[in-house]
Amino acid sequence: MALVVQKYGGSSVANAERIKRVAERIVAARKAGNDVVAVVSAMGDTTDELLDLAHQVSPLPPGRELDMLLTAGERISMALLAMAIHNLGFEARSYTGSQAGVVTTSVHGRARIIDVTPGRLQSALDEGAIAIVAGFQGVSQDTKDVTTLGRGGSDTTAVAIAVALEASVCEIYTDVDGVYTADPRIVSDARHIKTITYEEMLELAACGAKVLHLRSVEYARRANLPIHVRSSYSNNTGTMVTGSMEDPSVEHALITGVAHDRSEAKITIVAVPDEPGAAAKIFETVAEAEINIDMIVQNVSTEGTGRTDISFTLPKADGPTAMAALNKVQEQVMFKGLLYDDHVGKVSLIGAGMRSHPGIAAKFFSSLGEAGVNIEMISTSEIRVSVVCRDTDLDAAVRSIHDAFDLGGNEEAVVYAGTGR
Amino acid sequence: MALVVQKYGGSSVANAERIKRVAERIVAARKAGNDVVAVVSAMGDTTDELLDLAHQVSPLPPGRELDMLLTAGERISMALLAMAIHNLGFEARSYTGSQAGVVTTSVHGRARIIDVTPGRLQSALDEGAIAIVAGFQGVSQDTKDVTTLGRGGSDTTAVAIAVALEASVCEIYTDVDGVYTADPRIVSDARHIKTITYEEMLELAACGAKVLHLRSVEYARRANLPIHVRSSYSNNTGTMVTGSMEDPSVEHALITGVAHDRSEAKITIVAVPDEPGAAAKIFETVAEAEINIDMIVQNVSTEGTGRTDISFTLPKADGPTAMAALNKVQEQVMFKGLLYDDHVGKVSLIGAGMRSHPGIAAKFFSSLGEAGVNIEMISTSEIRVSVVCRDTDLDAAVRSIHDAFDLGGNEEAVVYAGTGR
Repeated sequence: MALVVQKYGGSSVANAERIKRVAERIVAARKAGNDVVAVVSAMGDTTDELLDLAHQVSPLPPGRELDMLLTAGERISMALLAMAIHNLGFEARSYTGSQAGVVTTSVHGRARIIDVTPGRLQSALDEGAIAIVAGFQGVSQDTKDVTTLGRGGSDTTAVAIAVALEASVCEIYTDVDGVYTADPRIVSDARHIKTITYEEMLELAACGAKVLHLRSVEYARRANLPIHVRSSYSNNTGTMVTGSMEDPSVEHALITGVAHDRSEAKITIVAVPDEPGAAAKIFETVAEAEINIDMIVQNVSTEGTGRTDISFTLPKADGPTAMAALNKVQEQVMFKGLLYDDHVGKVSLIGAGMRSHPGIAAKFFSSLGEAGVNIEMISTSEIRVSVVCRDTDLDAAVRSIHDAFDLGGNEEAVVYAGTGR
Repeated sequence: MALVVQKYGGSSVANAERIKRVAERIVAARKAGNDVVAVVSAMGDTTDELLDLAHQVSPLPPGRELDMLLTAGERISMALLAMAIHNLGFEARSYTGSQAGVVTTSVHGRARIIDVTPGRLQSALDEGAIAIVAGFQGVSQDTKDVTTLGRGGSDTTAVAIAVALEASVCEIYTDVDGVYTADPRIVSDARHIKTITYEEMLELAACGAKVLHLRSVEYARRANLPIHVRSSYSNNTGTMVTGSMEDPSVEHALITGVAHDRSEAKITIVAVPDEPGAAAKIFETVAEAEINIDMIVQNVSTEGTGRTDISFTLPKADGPTAMAALNKVQEQVMFKGLLYDDHVGKVSLIGAGMRSHPGIAAKFFSSLGEAGVNIEMISTSEIRVSVVCRDTDLDAAVRSIHDAFDLGGNEEAVVYAGTGR
């Protein structure tokens, strides 16, 4: 009997009707001869409603208690899902992250999984039951307190449990039926991707493709576990994330696709003294505020002034914290000012072919030029080229690049609104 | 430093404002020099809302999953309460029943506490924190599954934790400022009771007084732990439940008070063969359906017919189950029919004086006669006399008995609508 781990996001279990549909899907997998573990997120808007309650009692709720509160969300959805499965005549048991053996670090709100000890899940499977597991949550190794993994954490829970139980595949159910060469809401002829390597998927996820959480892909790559990204609204085969670019037997496309990201802002530090230590001090300051920065650009020092501008991008949500932290070191670093711009967008082209086809970057930039898109920042990796532009230019940029590289297909994409956590 | 355990019901934590008030009360107890553990129920109607969700996905949800679902309720209220306390500058940590060491039997929906191992609570107190504990829930000793204790279970959680931590008192906060000689909503001059023995409180609770859950009083009596029943809306001293009737040094009133109960129904089994084994079969049948019956009356067999009627009372909620179970044994027991009456009420007089004053029962019955109340069933214990009458006569019955025994006082009762679980 093969073991399948499935993950359903918040929109898939948003209400009683949806939960019953998910139950039918799980039972179908069971009837097809598989052992099944299903990882669920909280129902629809539950997390936001709980956050709202928290802010009604406290402007700055402590992390431990916020995690205790938010984990009530999956507790509700998983118990309801187990009930719905019972109602179809199959035995199902729900388990919290702690009961499922998801052991994490103790950083509340963004704990990392250290280990999974799935003894209770294995026993449930051995007794013929379907196991339902709360996504997004675990128990800290040191303090035994309840922790959460941060946004997108349920994907990581599913992959970690699939690895621990040596499942044959981890199926991630979402509102799109897989990964496309671009967001089908922007590019009407975006092509469905049948298989993609972990490396390509990582670059796509890092560049703003929301279909899979970055950490879950990293985790699956380390264990070489295939991830099947599927729609919870259809039975279509989705996208298989599997195989390494380094493996010569794995076929992969020259160009994988175009990703975009509207979630970042740009901070520019104006007229930084062009001397050793100045940039270091700036980025130390940002790091101490625990902010992840993405792209960095430093201009060549303007002749004679001895000063230069430094720009970087970061998640919009971290913008105010970063500005406040940098403001405090202005006198020490002796820069002239700070600019904050949250009307930027990032577009990226990902493809293994870049390693061996030097013309790709040139074609990328010329297509942007033809579309009239002004480039503000550039960043590249071995298999990716990204630029920052005005957010109003972003859709045009995505379309022009997708066209320039002939990525279009004929199938119609299946897309639904809303995303899980 | 003394240790105080406080319990707050669902109406006390019904919304963010109420939760902040409870936080202030807890902090006040802490500032007064006490260690504090607070046990909380789910917010207001949360339990009913979760039950409604459960019935949307399944007509008969399995007990294990129902307990998993319902325990999300206290998880939310306890985390919010801990946040509100943090906001007042005090360290507070919330614990689930399982984390607090509340070990129970594995009967889902009405588990009983076997043991409390409050190691984590003690550590929190030792580190100067206030501990917040989820009421109504525990973890089963055998299966390690989450369990619930049934309605009123949070009172029992509070008492059990107070006993385990050797607290000096368990304060139960409710919407009334203590126990009265009758329900002040029925009897306007009902008198506030300052102290009451465990035995008297047990009889009151068993006879329908909702202020304390029966099992919590039993638990406190075994450990000789004082319970202080107080209002969460005032700072008035409430009612102290303490001391045994058997202890000659304990003063107690001759008559404690009048209790009433509208939650029962009466089943009459018509024309049961008056022969050995018939009654036994009937009550075995009811017991197998796991229904607790209260009063039983069997009439003297009507001369010559060889048949008799048997009536008993039971919780209204169990009525349909009992009727269905009895219906199945009609042929076997050969009774003629079943009558179901849910328009009955029960009124009881409780008082230690009954043991030594034989006139009390006579006065009880004559006052009901004067009030025109027809008595349908009678039951007595050493310190109690109860009758069943029409539910429409119940208020008049309570008032006439309260008057007849001169139980009235002058203080105004402080009563609020709503009850916790």
